[in-house]
Amino acid sequence: MTGMDDKVRLADKLGLLDGPYRPGLVGYLNDYKLLVVRVHGEFVWHRHEDTDDFFLCLEGEVTIQLRDRNVVLAPGELFVVPRGVEHCPKADEPAHVLLIEPRDTVNTGDADSDLTAEPRPL
Amino acid sequence: MTGMDDKVRLADKLGLLDGPYRPGLVGYLNDYKLLVVRVHGEFVWHRHEDTDDFFLCLEGEVTIQLRDRNVVLAPGELFVVPRGVEHCPKADEPAHVLLIEPRDTVNTGDADSDLTAEPRPL
Repeated sequence: MTGMDDKVRLADKLGLLDGPYRPGLVGYLNDYKLLVVRVHGEFVWHRHEDTDDFFLCLEGEVTIQLRDRNVVLAPGELFVVPRGVEHCPKADEPAHVLLIEPRDTVNTGDADSDLTAEPRPL
Repeated sequence: MTGMDDKVRLADKLGLLDGPYRPGLVGYLNDYKLLVVRVHGEFVWHRHEDTDDFFLCLEGEVTIQLRDRNVVLAPGELFVVPRGVEHCPKADEPAHVLLIEPRDTVNTGDADSDLTAEPRPL
């Protein structure tokens, strides 16, 4: 991972990701982690009981499915999923987001899923 | 301000800013505020003793001056100023950043400055 003393060029990190929904760690803000994630296909429905979840679309088009509606994000658009709200990201074509959440947040929240993954420092 | 239930299109917010270094509030992430700021000219040297400071360049070119070097950010590049580290943003031409910091953070940190400003909801 780039040292915390350095700037991060987000576009350079996206190609280093292992695959869809395999988060890459690019830095920290206090006790929050800064992640880049490739979104492709559907993730898993989950919620985070203790934290909001910050999404900023970097590339492509990402749909944050909520139980009552969809929030569609294009590059430069952000959405904060409120704590406790069930959501499920998806994208028909590969897309990328910047995700910010507390360091101890599990990517799949309360869901029992094979997609649970620790972020890999990029 | 856009409700917390809505996505935020950052580009739409930049034209609503009052002027350089007049932060606009676009949302929250837990106890953090999400701000957009126009950077033009030089800000004021300051530090935040209790928090890191997240900058993501959205438009233009922003220089984060540190005492020992400059960090120059182009769009899509982010930098986290570590807590306690003196810094002073500047830009020769108008530029815009997304700033994320705890809700109680004062924009000018420890500096006694006319540039101290509360964020305005956009």
